Amino acid sequence: MDSKLKVSIIGASGYGGGELIRLLLNHPYVELNQITSESNVGKYAHSIHPNLRGQKLLQFVSAGDLEHCDVLFLAMPHGKAQLSIEKYSKLADKIIDLSADFRFSSKEDYKKWYGEEHLAPEFLSKFVYGLPEIHREEIKKAKYVSGVGCNATSVNIPLYPLAKEGLIDMLVLDLKVSSSEAGNKASEASHHPERANCLRTFAPVFHRHCGEISKELGISSDKIHFTATALDMVRGILSTSHVFLNKDVSEKDIRAIYRKYYSNEPFVRIVKDNQGIYRLSEPKILAGTNYCDIGFEKEEGTNRLVVIGAIDNLMKGASGTAVQCMNLMCGFEEKTALGFIGLHPI
Amino acid sequence: MDSKLKVSIIGASGYGGGELIRLLLNHPYVELNQITSESNVGKYAHSIHPNLRGQKLLQFVSAGDLEHCDVLFLAMPHGKAQLSIEKYSKLADKIIDLSADFRFSSKEDYKKWYGEEHLAPEFLSKFVYGLPEIHREEIKKAKYVSGVGCNATSVNIPLYPLAKEGLIDMLVLDLKVSSSEAGNKASEASHHPERANCLRTFAPVFHRHCGEISKELGISSDKIHFTATALDMVRGILSTSHVFLNKDVSEKDIRAIYRKYYSNEPFVRIVKDNQGIYRLSEPKILAGTNYCDIGFEKEEGTNRLVVIGAIDNLMKGASGTAVQCMNLMCGFEEKTALGFIGLHPI
Amino acid sequence: MDSKLKVSIIGASGYGGGELIRLLLNHPYVELNQITSESNVGKYAHSIHPNLRGQKLLQFVSAGDLEHCDVLFLAMPHGKAQLSIEKYSKLADKIIDLSADFRFSSKEDYKKWYGEEHLAPEFLSKFVYGLPEIHREEIKKAKYVSGVGCNATSVNIPLYPLAKEGLIDMLVLDLKVSSSEAGNKASEASHHPERANCLRTFAPVFHRHCGEISKELGISSDKIHFTATALDMVRGILSTSHVFLNKDVSEKDIRAIYRKYYSNEPFVRIVKDNQGIYRLSEPKILAGTNYCDIGFEKEEGTNRLVVIGAIDNLMKGASGTAVQCMNLMCGFEEKTALGFIGLHPI
Amino acid sequence: MDSKLKVSIIGASGYGGGELIRLLLNHPYVELNQITSESNVGKYAHSIHPNLRGQKLLQFVSAGDLEHCDVLFLAMPHGKAQLSIEKYSKLADKIIDLSADFRFSSKEDYKKWYGEEHLAPEFLSKFVYGLPEIHREEIKKAKYVSGVGCNATSVNIPLYPLAKEGLIDMLVLDLKVSSSEAGNKASEASHHPERANCLRTFAPVFHRHCGEISKELGISSDKIHFTATALDMVRGILSTSHVFLNKDVSEKDIRAIYRKYYSNEPFVRIVKDNQGIYRLSEPKILAGTNYCDIGFEKEEGTNRLVVIGAIDNLMKGASGTAVQCMNLMCGFEEKTALGFIGLHPI
Repeated sequence: MDSKLKVSIIGASGYGGGELIRLLLNHPYVELNQITSESNVGKYAHSIHPNLRGQKLLQFVSAGDLEHCDVLFLAMPHGKAQLSIEKYSKLADKIIDLSADFRFSSKEDYKKWYGEEHLAPEFLSKFVYGLPEIHREEIKKAKYVSGVGCNATSVNIPLYPLAKEGLIDMLVLDLKVSSSEAGNKASEASHHPERANCLRTFAPVFHRHCGEISKELGISSDKIHFTATALDMVRGILSTSHVFLNKDVSEKDIRAIYRKYYSNEPFVRIVKDNQGIYRLSEPKILAGTNYCDIGFEKEEGTNRLVVIGAIDNLMKGASGTAVQCMNLMCGFEEKTALGFIGLHPI
Repeated sequence: MDSKLKVSIIGASGYGGGELIRLLLNHPYVELNQITSESNVGKYAHSIHPNLRGQKLLQFVSAGDLEHCDVLFLAMPHGKAQLSIEKYSKLADKIIDLSADFRFSSKEDYKKWYGEEHLAPEFLSKFVYGLPEIHREEIKKAKYVSGVGCNATSVNIPLYPLAKEGLIDMLVLDLKVSSSEAGNKASEASHHPERANCLRTFAPVFHRHCGEISKELGISSDKIHFTATALDMVRGILSTSHVFLNKDVSEKDIRAIYRKYYSNEPFVRIVKDNQGIYRLSEPKILAGTNYCDIGFEKEEGTNRLVVIGAIDNLMKGASGTAVQCMNLMCGFEEKTALGFIGLHPI
Repeated sequence: MDSKLKVSIIGASGYGGGELIRLLLNHPYVELNQITSESNVGKYAHSIHPNLRGQKLLQFVSAGDLEHCDVLFLAMPHGKAQLSIEKYSKLADKIIDLSADFRFSSKEDYKKWYGEEHLAPEFLSKFVYGLPEIHREEIKKAKYVSGVGCNATSVNIPLYPLAKEGLIDMLVLDLKVSSSEAGNKASEASHHPERANCLRTFAPVFHRHCGEISKELGISSDKIHFTATALDMVRGILSTSHVFLNKDVSEKDIRAIYRKYYSNEPFVRIVKDNQGIYRLSEPKILAGTNYCDIGFEKEEGTNRLVVIGAIDNLMKGASGTAVQCMNLMCGFEEKTALGFIGLHPI
Repeated sequence: MDSKLKVSIIGASGYGGGELIRLLLNHPYVELNQITSESNVGKYAHSIHPNLRGQKLLQFVSAGDLEHCDVLFLAMPHGKAQLSIEKYSKLADKIIDLSADFRFSSKEDYKKWYGEEHLAPEFLSKFVYGLPEIHREEIKKAKYVSGVGCNATSVNIPLYPLAKEGLIDMLVLDLKVSSSEAGNKASEASHHPERANCLRTFAPVFHRHCGEISKELGISSDKIHFTATALDMVRGILSTSHVFLNKDVSEKDIRAIYRKYYSNEPFVRIVKDNQGIYRLSEPKILAGTNYCDIGFEKEEGTNRLVVIGAIDNLMKGASGTAVQCMNLMCGFEEKTALGFIGLHPI
């Protein structure tokens, strides 16, 4: 017990924070020490995250009452981490921030995509972008790791090998997303009678996550055409990437490329079957898992390759990947606490 | 055109008000004159009720700008109508109030079920309870008619014949209800990630609508055991009434009783088939219709009769019945503007 | 009554047939005379289409027992109409076929898209493609009209003006579709535990409806990149058309183009608002209606225009449009029996 | 590795079998040796259960090819296990049967509830009813254990303490159930357009699981009034038990009774809060878990106590409890492989 790492979470009342608690409670090498929520001080974690009932009793404290810890997760709304990162950096040896605050290494890029001046630009270069499938070795050595955008991740993992091989001419990205992606704050737009059964194109031509896509894939943002539609789903993203290739590549070639990049990845699966109901990737069977499933099909006679990415936005798209990063940063086996297989049917 | 009745709606931005607009726009004998919403003055109806796009252009006005009309619908939240009923009574010859304010004829009953003093008790006796299946003849002659509670209606129509025949010993009412029943105001409880997939027993032992059930069925409220559970559904109520009978009655007898009371009712259907998928009543095929479907099955060897009621809570449970009342009050054919058949599949 | 046209439906047990029955029962100028279903002879229509309970009693007959009628609807599975069209053509003055059998005017096109020889090629040129928004005048004079593909229609109406103006360079079509599109036959793929919550890319790179899209828009099929994903929805299609334009066109220009083509169309609405929850088109509020709603947004700095089409696949995508064609063919007011406004919330 | 117990599953292509595979693959003390499915011989497990992709590769074999094993799970449709139990008893030291075949200890009871003669009555008394909350000590010593009915379990765990204390006068059981409960065979009734959005009272007055309820609670079946309604949900049961008590008992007393019986139960949680959205038990947050959550509320002034039970029908209602039994039978820690916390939001 003594040798367990001490971990705390700032902003643990949100959906990302809740998933972190769930994962860390089952992690054999860490002890979840403190969780904060300014509006819920004194309340039990399970009063906000009802799935935690009956687990280790945890009470929310104020961020002001945080003790020093080995790993600190920041799970606050966008823009908050940069306000106090200086202070947090003294509280913990290692920091993993789930927000968008430290996903870019330059303040210019941050401003381009988020429209505001960054408030702690000196920290930008200290953070590693926390996507193990692309930055595993850097993450292992990092002190500070940034979380990933869920929409970006649903695209970046499936397309990275193709981009790296220099095959992509142009991208049309059509994402189907769920309601938990927008967080736990109620609004008219999230009111059940309006949000149920919806097919709401909330981002017809632009999304801030395109910055992360452009950066990670190394593709100019004017070649990335993004659209996102919200569905009546609580968890999960399906990304349909219409990839226009710059050379003639067969499905066999594509398979070989994925094998080359991902055959050892613990959380990437290629899903391309000739029969059955689940021939291509689907997010529903990924709820609670850290997988990114990738399907694809080449259009005959044209240069379009359709790549289908599926993730659980709160897991591989946020907290799951964050815990995976912690495992890498701390030298734990990478899959620790992330072994949930997923349910079927669901 | 000149001979059309002038109709206005106070509180037309809510779900009940939206349904009234939809129905009245298609009503051949009335002209929808004004619609009010204090928080939406100047906005078009379709900015709030998107289904109204492309219909007659209507702008919300303030209630203070209401002109005299032939029929005035009140569709405000509970407690508001009684505040200004005196004033409204001078604005219109006929008033139909959808709220709970005038459902009881005595101030004592109102206080018993709503916990507050009534603010316009002198009007209570002027209102007729607007359920045509029970009070058709009174409604025809009424100047003021009260709307019905949706949950109460899902029980009252199916059980009235049994109550009238003196067959009911005790009732266990188990209601399955949808999110539109709670109105258009967003809250943490209606936030999609929480409200989706829910099975929330929000009223385990009590609901204010029990007052209307007790009154209309003539059954003491301590014999009425009520429970309501909210489902992931936007429209519709399924009421499962576990009726404990005080005498031995066969299914054939029950059928005969329903025929006696309801064979001429335009909006009541008995649904009890031996085969097919829809053997008993189901709300999904009632969306947009004014039907109350009734199914039943007698338990062999005991005195329990299970009666299954299905309605669209916004139609038969609110605005549909209100328009049906208007038709009766104004001498129109009772089904006018209420002929929508319902969709399948849906 | 005598002056009503006699109408019959072959294949009335399917979902398209059920919608036809529903619409025709409320049509003031026709009398629904006979409905056929070989596997349901003698059964009542409401035993298959439960929403029809309480309407005019109709029993399924065999197609062999069909009497002569004024208008005959064919609502059989693909491939059946061409088998007996000769016979049917003697039974009725006017024929409207909902299937894919007569959507192409050449047998070569039919074979190209459906992979089989056409069995009644001499009838192909006698049929008019039944999309009033493009072929109204021909339909008015036609004896034989072909129904439309639902997926094709969700794209063709929104894109026709742009195509006609010669603006389209290339299309990426990303459709989100519902389960009723696949008909009423149960299968492993439609089994609820598998089909619920699904995001199944059942047509990653090809769909037979592309033939109709290519033909109606006058765009070579190699410029049309199609993908369709099935969602947990019973009715409705959302088509996201990523339109790559061949010249610089502003949103204002696009608006003007839609006004030019569609300002008098009874069932086309442009949905493009700056506020509110329903800023762009959404199928959920179209259930039961004959509308095609069109939204759009131009991507700044690129030549992509995103066009969002929404329809009820069983209405505008099938039976609604078929009845609209009948109205045109018979000289009835075009909107007759198609005035349902749609529900909100739903 | 050598010391791991060898486990096999007969009938592993069904939903219960799939859950067993998922659980056993993560079980540290057993090795999943063989899985059978007569119609899928040679196929990989993940071709049927897509969540298993990327796990240990398992191929279905024929039951005829089964090797001897330490524990054998039978997960076949009702009526199959009794046909071959003699043979299976020679294949394995310990047997756990998930079907209804061995839930009763007398052939008379079996015939009463299942309407057929039992084909292996001599085995009935050898089986222990596998509900650890009631039969833990017997299960520990058992060689043969019967699985539990999912609907029965959703009622038995919540009501057992009340029954044992002799408090129950009469029961009205109103169950809300999901589609996976009916298994993986497609039918017209499970066809998505019909089954989605449904509220189908498929068991208005009777269910075979009442036999298990009567037996386990020790309450005469004529005092048990059962109704079940199918909802648009894939997993989960909510049981609303309207318990009519034979004496005056307070909520405090009820709490004390639950504490007495269940304070040490690893998978039973009492859910009764005064605030928050999840005040009472709800199945959605239980997907994949082995919990039975129990909420309750006493009606003032009457003898009705409403008890709300929530389970995942495939876990606590079937495979989860079966693995819990295996853990007890084999001397493993009872929670082994059953520690999944459940997701929120979902």
